[in-house]
Amino acid sequence: MIANTPEPPYYAVIFTSIKEEVTEGYAEMAEQMEALARQQPGFLGVESAREEIGITVSYWSSLDAIKQWKENAKHRIAQRLGYQEWYTSYRTRICLVEREYGIDAK
Amino acid sequence: MIANTPEPPYYAVIFTSIKEEVTEGYAEMAEQMEALARQQPGFLGVESAREEIGITVSYWSSLDAIKQWKENAKHRIAQRLGYQEWYTSYRTRICLVEREYGIDAK
Repeated sequence: MIANTPEPPYYAVIFTSIKEEVTEGYAEMAEQMEALARQQPGFLGVESAREEIGITVSYWSSLDAIKQWKENAKHRIAQRLGYQEWYTSYRTRICLVEREYGIDAK
Repeated sequence: MIANTPEPPYYAVIFTSIKEEVTEGYAEMAEQMEALARQQPGFLGVESAREEIGITVSYWSSLDAIKQWKENAKHRIAQRLGYQEWYTSYRTRICLVEREYGIDAK
């Protein structure tokens, strides 16, 4: 699903990652973390796809909302496991969304 | 490949799309457009993955570089075909990347 975000400005976190070949527990954790993110204050939406690399873009109302999510206790455990066990490499980019346009369906 | 972008600030264009089931000519055009984008002034990198939705994030040195790429004649033809033939829905978000962190490999 394309995230149904509000009028800008708002924030985006672009998380790009390359996984190890074997990633036990990863899929369940990813699913749990998405469900948990959706309950966070300031959460606006999320988009995700993986082929050679994985890209997850989550949208937030403020930098403070991103900070709170980053510091969420369960999310911190997931982050640590990700960096130690599952990801070969990753990059996180914190962005201010300035403009948005598109069509929702034909 | 995770894009090897410079120190922020720089810009990101997050392009999220859902394709029609049949998209004749799409793959060739996507490949051509990526090659063409890489030659544009101000191009910094691109990341792309598609499952249920497609996410392509391209990185640029300035808003002006994004504008020039948007107005590139060959790219305009591709955009028109995309909107008329290939995409059921899409969203383009123009973002200022404020912070970036990560690891490149273990």
